[in-house]
Amino acid sequence: MTKQALFQQILKKKSYLCVGLDPDLDLLPKHLLQLDDPIFSFNKAIIDATADLCVAYKPNLAFYEALGIKGWIALQKTLNYIPKSHFTIADAKRGDIGNTSKKYATAFFEQMNFDAITVAPYMGVDSVQPFFGFEGKWVILLALTSNTGSDNFQFLNTQDGKLFEQVLLQSQSWGNPENMMYVIGATHPELFEQIRKIAPNHFLLVPGIGAQGGDLTTVSKYGMNKECGLLVNASRAILYASQGEDFAVRARAVALAMQQEMATLLERYLNQ
Amino acid sequence: MTKQALFQQILKKKSYLCVGLDPDLDLLPKHLLQLDDPIFSFNKAIIDATADLCVAYKPNLAFYEALGIKGWIALQKTLNYIPKSHFTIADAKRGDIGNTSKKYATAFFEQMNFDAITVAPYMGVDSVQPFFGFEGKWVILLALTSNTGSDNFQFLNTQDGKLFEQVLLQSQSWGNPENMMYVIGATHPELFEQIRKIAPNHFLLVPGIGAQGGDLTTVSKYGMNKECGLLVNASRAILYASQGEDFAVRARAVALAMQQEMATLLERYLNQ
Repeated sequence: MTKQALFQQILKKKSYLCVGLDPDLDLLPKHLLQLDDPIFSFNKAIIDATADLCVAYKPNLAFYEALGIKGWIALQKTLNYIPKSHFTIADAKRGDIGNTSKKYATAFFEQMNFDAITVAPYMGVDSVQPFFGFEGKWVILLALTSNTGSDNFQFLNTQDGKLFEQVLLQSQSWGNPENMMYVIGATHPELFEQIRKIAPNHFLLVPGIGAQGGDLTTVSKYGMNKECGLLVNASRAILYASQGEDFAVRARAVALAMQQEMATLLERYLNQ
Repeated sequence: MTKQALFQQILKKKSYLCVGLDPDLDLLPKHLLQLDDPIFSFNKAIIDATADLCVAYKPNLAFYEALGIKGWIALQKTLNYIPKSHFTIADAKRGDIGNTSKKYATAFFEQMNFDAITVAPYMGVDSVQPFFGFEGKWVILLALTSNTGSDNFQFLNTQDGKLFEQVLLQSQSWGNPENMMYVIGATHPELFEQIRKIAPNHFLLVPGIGAQGGDLTTVSKYGMNKECGLLVNASRAILYASQGEDFAVRARAVALAMQQEMATLLERYLNQ
């Protein structure tokens, strides 16, 4: 999907919501567990309940890998079921030496046909570059993550700013705003203004709203650019709004509240 | 597998060789491609040809993911085929927020029963900790990788040494030498002496010998400790020694030459 097409979807739906599809058998509504493929049944119901309210879906690979081959089958079925209008993100946080990253790119962009994959920056340029060069496909590079452990290394002072700023600066010569986004956690809302100075035109994938406590208004105020430039992810807050038979109805209610807040924020900040 | 058991295997075989099982359909001997499961057939032949010469096998997940569900089946068959005496490493370079890393740990340690998994450090302590606490299982944390892109971030100067040194220092309070190893690329042999000052007792998983050009003697001279403390990996140099029908024979010849060199180096440096 092109950046322009993604922006059009955002305008059409008045939403920059990304729904994280992280199905956890321990948290799934009990009545689904008797079905043949509870994971796909759950994802299908969540997609049906939220597709008109979000522009992207982001399965986190860990939740599928944990189930072995059954998990991969459920993931493929899920991916086939997501409407073509939606941007699909493999939250995989991959990254390896060149010939290996190329295999991951094949896996996610050709074998599975995701639009984007999250990539870890630690191994540097030749671990990331093999993911470029697939038309309409995106690298989403981890820059500033939403977890507490982001303090350990991402905030270390280097000779030129903090490590996450180095990642933002150096990587801008690897890709461009048409094929690269950054992960910036909502748990650091005070940093969005400064991040937008370094990377004014890139889309930012923002986890950490909801279960992790990030603040959507601050993120939107400082993070939004003239093409929105934000995909804000919510996973647990939507998926597990209820663990009863009403899970899809309740998931929709949470997603709807987020979409309505986003509509207001788009109105307020898009052309500020 | 415990550290002591691994060291016993090293002494018994006079080898600290790890064979990387990175099967690439583009490089596989042509006559295997007609078989039902060319990947498993290839791995099986490589394992048969090298099992008495190495102490560990390291499948890189990318090569299996690139083949979709067939790849995961081949991986599981391979893992079941590796003798119990061998240390098994999922070269997966995973790492995510806590609840997600826990799912990866389940996938690799319980679903697939690997002994160890490689983990990326960028997201910090809470992305790594969920991998600990599985008895006999290991985290192998990326510290200094063998690729040229290691220059981008790993060598950045921070307030307390270079980034990879910070990774070595900080992470030592997360695990211990009985459940954590480090990836240190053989392409930086001059740094092994200094790395051993920071981490004297940890095993180091060393890629970059062979196809990537690292030097085994220097690595062994400066990297070996009193329990050997090294697992030196070779993938392409062994797997693709020949792409003809003699691939397994030629793979064995390369592995044997490495094992013989290791026997000499163990003699020379183990009790230095």
